[in-house]
Amino acid sequence: MEIRTVNLNRKLNNINTYWTPKIVGELNNQLVKIAKFKGEFVMHRHEHEDELFYVIEGKLFIELNDKTLELNAGEFVIIPKGIEHKPYAPEEASVMLFEPTTTLNTGNVQNDLTLSDLDKI
Amino acid sequence: MEIRTVNLNRKLNNINTYWTPKIVGELNNQLVKIAKFKGEFVMHRHEHEDELFYVIEGKLFIELNDKTLELNAGEFVIIPKGIEHKPYAPEEASVMLFEPTTTLNTGNVQNDLTLSDLDKI
Repeated sequence: MEIRTVNLNRKLNNINTYWTPKIVGELNNQLVKIAKFKGEFVMHRHEHEDELFYVIEGKLFIELNDKTLELNAGEFVIIPKGIEHKPYAPEEASVMLFEPTTTLNTGNVQNDLTLSDLDKI
Repeated sequence: MEIRTVNLNRKLNNINTYWTPKIVGELNNQLVKIAKFKGEFVMHRHEHEDELFYVIEGKLFIELNDKTLELNAGEFVIIPKGIEHKPYAPEEASVMLFEPTTTLNTGNVQNDLTLSDLDKI
C-alpha cells in the first residue's frame, strides 16, 4: 500500500453535500472521515463507540442533554459512547471525525440521514 | 466525566519542549496527542500500531526507506505498522497524533528520546 499525504482542504473541495461523511484514512480499525455540516442533524447516540469531532473551518454546535458545546476551527471534542448528541451548524462547517470502523452516522437512530456505506475519497 | 472542548492552539501554548507529545484526548483505546517538533527524530517503527501525523502549523518531513514525505498545515499521513519512519522539521512544527494507547514514541528504538509516561494537558 502506498503511503500518501492527505490535504484536508483539497479533499473537502470534493464534497458538495451536507451530512455525508467521506472516508479519508483508516488506521487501527478506526476511520478518519471528513464532512460538511449545515443545518441540524438528528439527536442520537453510539452505544459502543466514542466519537471525535474536530472543526477544520466554520462553527459547530453539539447539543447534549444538559448543555450545548460550541466548537470553532482548531477545536475538537470527544463524545463518549452512550451520550446523546445532536450536531448543528448555522452556517457551513467543515469537520474531521475520528471513530471506529463500526460507527454508523446516526447511531441508534435510523432515518433519512442514515448512511451505511460511506465513500472513500 | 465532563465533556469539554479542546482548543489545540491553547494547548500548544503549554508545550515548550520538542519531541515530547502530550495527551489531549482518549477514545476507543486510542490517544490524541499534540507535540512540537524541531530538528531530527530517530528512525524507528511501531510493530503493532499504525500512526497518524497531522500538521497543525509549520512543515514536517517524514523520511521513509524509499522516499521522504512533506506535510504542511492541514495535511496528514498514516504510517502503517512495521514501516520505518523518521520525522524531522527544519523549523518548529506543531503536530497532532492519533495512535493506540500502547504506542511508544520511539517504537522499536530505545534512546534518550524515548518517553514512556506522557503528560496529559
